[in-house]
Amino acid sequence: MVRTMHEIVGIATKVGKNVTKFKEGDRVGVGVIIGSCESCESCNQDLENYCPKVVFTYNSRSSDGTRNQGGYSDVIVVDHRFVLSIPNGLPSDAAAPLLCAGITVYSPMKYYGMTEESGKHLGVNGLGGLGHIAVKIGKAFGLRVTVISRSSEKESEAIDRLGADSFLVTTDSQKMKDAVGTMDFVIDTVSAEHALLPLFSLLKVSGKLVALGLSEKSLELPIFPLVLGRKMVGGSQIGGMKETQEMLEFCAKHNIVADIELIKMSDINSAMDRLAKSDVRYRFVIDVANSLVTESSAEILEEHVDHGVSITSKF
Amino acid sequence: MVRTMHEIVGIATKVGKNVTKFKEGDRVGVGVIIGSCESCESCNQDLENYCPKVVFTYNSRSSDGTRNQGGYSDVIVVDHRFVLSIPNGLPSDAAAPLLCAGITVYSPMKYYGMTEESGKHLGVNGLGGLGHIAVKIGKAFGLRVTVISRSSEKESEAIDRLGADSFLVTTDSQKMKDAVGTMDFVIDTVSAEHALLPLFSLLKVSGKLVALGLSEKSLELPIFPLVLGRKMVGGSQIGGMKETQEMLEFCAKHNIVADIELIKMSDINSAMDRLAKSDVRYRFVIDVANSLVTESSAEILEEHVDHGVSITSKF
Repeated sequence: MVRTMHEIVGIATKVGKNVTKFKEGDRVGVGVIIGSCESCESCNQDLENYCPKVVFTYNSRSSDGTRNQGGYSDVIVVDHRFVLSIPNGLPSDAAAPLLCAGITVYSPMKYYGMTEESGKHLGVNGLGGLGHIAVKIGKAFGLRVTVISRSSEKESEAIDRLGADSFLVTTDSQKMKDAVGTMDFVIDTVSAEHALLPLFSLLKVSGKLVALGLSEKSLELPIFPLVLGRKMVGGSQIGGMKETQEMLEFCAKHNIVADIELIKMSDINSAMDRLAKSDVRYRFVIDVANSLVTESSAEILEEHVDHGVSITSKF
Repeated sequence: MVRTMHEIVGIATKVGKNVTKFKEGDRVGVGVIIGSCESCESCNQDLENYCPKVVFTYNSRSSDGTRNQGGYSDVIVVDHRFVLSIPNGLPSDAAAPLLCAGITVYSPMKYYGMTEESGKHLGVNGLGGLGHIAVKIGKAFGLRVTVISRSSEKESEAIDRLGADSFLVTTDSQKMKDAVGTMDFVIDTVSAEHALLPLFSLLKVSGKLVALGLSEKSLELPIFPLVLGRKMVGGSQIGGMKETQEMLEFCAKHNIVADIELIKMSDINSAMDRLAKSDVRYRFVIDVANSLVTESSAEILEEHVDHGVSITSKF
């Protein structure tokens, strides 16, 4: 079993009697959420991710009052609505981050109309865990992709390895000026406080800026570019279960996986130190099964979990 | 002829030889713009209002270097692309402000998807020149409309006279709390610096905030509601010529006009003083024809203006 904190891939070892989508032995995934009310307007539109009662896979309070441990736990029982099928083409380790980073960029590309017409120009601000997947999925949707970054450090990485069409360094004022009004969309993955005005300037009339980074502080919103250029800024948070499954099929079809570094449980502390310095390209994935001293056994823990899928680290 | 600074209604007195849409004697209108490049991406999509070479009706530099005077001038010659036909049902004076305020709210209602499904809930923040037309047009599109205001002063006006469904006072914290997550759209007409967070809170998941007021200062953009609720804020500026004509037909069909106070040229200084205090419901319109001591005569001033329409104040 390979997983990150809330992006888990494993094997279904037991399924509840009302579960029809999965059977024992299936390779399955669990993403950022493991529960929702299943009856609100959002849930009814397959947008469980926006349900006000959403339960997160990691660090949410469970019904018994304990905090759940997400991908750090060795076994997990999850309601089948929140379990995903991992397509054959995808490796378990490199597919795992798609369950968060993948859907986080895929969903807004669909929602904000980036996929309706190929050849549109997408800027991806910040080349990290989200950004590198945004480049790959954007290219697979037929977009022209420019990576926007503070330094030229990742230029060859972006173009030669990830397949971006061009690279724009924000401190190069001449290049920034030349790029004014050239982009249809910008996906902004930066969560630190930063200026939006240069990003708005890159957009064409009716261009859309999608903010994915959760900046704690409010950002400055200049109104003139919005009004004078009919531009907008919108957000998006992961995606619903149906769309997450769709994204996995899309990635399998286009051979898209995350770039990862596979580590053992015992490497976590040093991995955390490196994360703090953004020193990872682009996601750490923990190989839980091969980190455990004793073998764990997963099963449907309670008789009443008729919709549950029990997932283990053992492949 | 009745008009505001850049919302003009008059009679065509002469048309250039290549003008087919209009003939002498037609009642015509001129809105905020009188020229554009007519060849850029925006112009090709009937979005002349977003053309980088747009020429405004008032206070733009003309090709001869002079500043144009818009609706303050007694005659005007305008290229036929930028001349509108005033439908029979609309009175000249109360229709004039539709050419700015009307299209300014109509265009974003269409663009941001407010008109696709009736019964959606629209909040209109600020009940002034833009807001009162937004209420009328919103109702005509079948929306449920709530006026959002700092005080209860205009409540009966909004509901009894303009037809709004409800009224929400932003200083009433209980009512604001009750209204959280109830609106699909908010049209924000306030141009003074103000907080966006309370408006985002009123929006449902995937709700849209449309900023129309040109705040000089940047506003604070809280990122959490955008990301966690897939909300967005976008702008819009008047509309293209084709859509402006469509808006006029729509208003004629639904008996929508602006609420105006008709004044003479000689009243302008006191009107300006009252405008500074927001003391007008909701637009001043100058009756130019009846303000002139001598009669003006409009004609195609230059031989080469084959696409021009000459418009006079004389009805």
